[in-house]
Amino acid sequence: MVITSFNPPIRTLMGPGPSDVHPRVLSALARPTIGHLDPSFGLMMDEVKTLLQYALQTDSQLTFPVSAPGSAGMETCFANLLEAGDTVIVCQNGVFGGRMKENVERCGAIAIMVEDDWGQAVSPQKVEDALKAHPEASVLAFVHAETSTGALSDAKTLCALAHQYDCLSIVDAVTSLGGSELRVDDWGIDAIYSGTQKCLSCVPGLSPVSFSERAQERIKQRTQRVQSWFLDLNLVMAYWGGDGARSYHHTAPVNSLYALHESLVMLQQEGLEQAWARHSSLHLALKAGLEAMGLGFIVPEGSRLPQLNTVTIPEGIDEAVVRKRLLHDYNLEIGAGLGSLAGKVWRIGLMGHSANASNVMFCLAALESVLSDMGANIHTGAALPAAQKITFG
Amino acid sequence: MVITSFNPPIRTLMGPGPSDVHPRVLSALARPTIGHLDPSFGLMMDEVKTLLQYALQTDSQLTFPVSAPGSAGMETCFANLLEAGDTVIVCQNGVFGGRMKENVERCGAIAIMVEDDWGQAVSPQKVEDALKAHPEASVLAFVHAETSTGALSDAKTLCALAHQYDCLSIVDAVTSLGGSELRVDDWGIDAIYSGTQKCLSCVPGLSPVSFSERAQERIKQRTQRVQSWFLDLNLVMAYWGGDGARSYHHTAPVNSLYALHESLVMLQQEGLEQAWARHSSLHLALKAGLEAMGLGFIVPEGSRLPQLNTVTIPEGIDEAVVRKRLLHDYNLEIGAGLGSLAGKVWRIGLMGHSANASNVMFCLAALESVLSDMGANIHTGAALPAAQKITFG
Repeated sequence: MVITSFNPPIRTLMGPGPSDVHPRVLSALARPTIGHLDPSFGLMMDEVKTLLQYALQTDSQLTFPVSAPGSAGMETCFANLLEAGDTVIVCQNGVFGGRMKENVERCGAIAIMVEDDWGQAVSPQKVEDALKAHPEASVLAFVHAETSTGALSDAKTLCALAHQYDCLSIVDAVTSLGGSELRVDDWGIDAIYSGTQKCLSCVPGLSPVSFSERAQERIKQRTQRVQSWFLDLNLVMAYWGGDGARSYHHTAPVNSLYALHESLVMLQQEGLEQAWARHSSLHLALKAGLEAMGLGFIVPEGSRLPQLNTVTIPEGIDEAVVRKRLLHDYNLEIGAGLGSLAGKVWRIGLMGHSANASNVMFCLAALESVLSDMGANIHTGAALPAAQKITFG
Repeated sequence: MVITSFNPPIRTLMGPGPSDVHPRVLSALARPTIGHLDPSFGLMMDEVKTLLQYALQTDSQLTFPVSAPGSAGMETCFANLLEAGDTVIVCQNGVFGGRMKENVERCGAIAIMVEDDWGQAVSPQKVEDALKAHPEASVLAFVHAETSTGALSDAKTLCALAHQYDCLSIVDAVTSLGGSELRVDDWGIDAIYSGTQKCLSCVPGLSPVSFSERAQERIKQRTQRVQSWFLDLNLVMAYWGGDGARSYHHTAPVNSLYALHESLVMLQQEGLEQAWARHSSLHLALKAGLEAMGLGFIVPEGSRLPQLNTVTIPEGIDEAVVRKRLLHDYNLEIGAGLGSLAGKVWRIGLMGHSANASNVMFCLAALESVLSDMGANIHTGAALPAAQKITFG
């Protein structure tokens, strides 16, 4: 069989990520590769660190992108902060809390689960109860923005509780970074990981992480070796460390880092708070349109992520057929439900570069058109005016 | 501080990798991102698998690129095949055998080291002695092409020994894939990992791996969970598995996979054996030029990697100054020595797209020019004619 070059279809990405990558970022990605120990590359790495510190609102020097996707960022946090026998309070209100539990257990540590319904924010009361009941716990772990449900949890309050009970906090910010308010230092987040393919609209494959002084102290005091060589911060920092000397650990993903640099430059140019506000206002426009059509949200108002809208499906409609038609007829990707929400919701992303007014209108128009054609019980003709009014005033 | 877009210098990459990425690959890299669960992307993944099977000369269905650099590919092999308490014979004749030892120990297993001098191939006799002395060993691990020294070991013979003593073989082919003869099925390699940034001339950040039936059987019979969630093959295969159904594990590095696809299409177009022959003939031209200049190789003839030439430094010359001047004056990157060879050798790569006749002549000319200017004791005027004769006949 002869295989030829692959030319992907041109999609509009409004699922749970990856989001549409801006042409500026794709262009940076394709710049000529240089060596991972090239002095010019080192200067760029310093800039990536500075830009990430801004995006995360932290002064921590231990801030850099792990050379692998968000799941590896998660593992970096758990593998470095936990030792066998430790106890961790893990909050679960969606898929990714479950993945945290897997990580804890594979480190030989014990996960105490705090469960909330999928679509609900993490309950600070339940967390406090668990912290009280488990004075042996050394870490509290939770998801700031649950990509599987669209729920935003109160990271500031949860981190304060962690410290009150002498725990470090590990926070999943894969979907929040760049899309929702996130203040690592002000909120006292000790270890955070994110992804590049959500609200940064960079290509997938890197995971920004950051560690507080307290977390770094914990890592220094380990008695057991980190079980992963690739993710061992003691080793990685010889390459990403702050003193300018860069010794080889692994070959950095040079071109992906060009792309991350460019997406962070764009975030800096827009301004972090402006980016948060853009996600928020476009969410309101999408919401107005969806509600005018008769669709609802599963997450209570107040906990809704602007960048990930988890939307109900009209009765009698096969949600997979709708997604297939949107992809086939409109080259529009929206997301399916995950885990216990599979088949019950759509996940409509408004992330990074994908979060723009044209996409809101396009998505509403395409969805209304397909649903009407399938005979769904929705209100037609109301969605676009409702969204237009909010988007364009 | 305002940070602006990064425009890298245009280098010629003749170090130990990354190598120069072909414009076709950079162009593929920058194609519009689509979703990691998009049906079109799934078809491309199938093609990547087929192309990798060709490049590795294997029919194994468990052949795919890990979403992280070669070091993570190494860890994938060890973390999945080892359980705590296992014994592994690890051959060390350079940096990467040492990294294997780290991996073995972090899995809670015992590494029995078989040491050879840096620059020498792994000794099959020593390996057999170790296998005899350690009947409890379950795995033999060695580096096929030692990037730190430029030595090629006899993978076929070593794998036959492994099987004779009832061990699985884990083989590091980071630098050999696409540049030197490598036949996974014929040689009975059980687990292999490689990198994309060497003789495939793709961007760094992915690690092709493949596992034999025997290795898959071992993984199925595990009694302990794989300690890494991200690298657990039982989970990864739900996404990369052969049955067409792709369930979400992590967000694949979509654009890097476009690039790998294109680089593998190019390898298929050239032909695998033609690519091996190209590396070999250009190595001979470079060697003729270097020897005419008076420089020598540290690896004995017969064990030399064509794609990685470890070259001696003229007496009294500060090798780092030479590299700096090559980079500054000629935008030419060659590599430094690593580990015990630091300061003692250069590593000149002829990998993938970088392995072309113009680069051989350019590198010799630049090196001769800088060395002459620094007053090194070399023969001048002889290198280019010697190389030209071999390259162009």
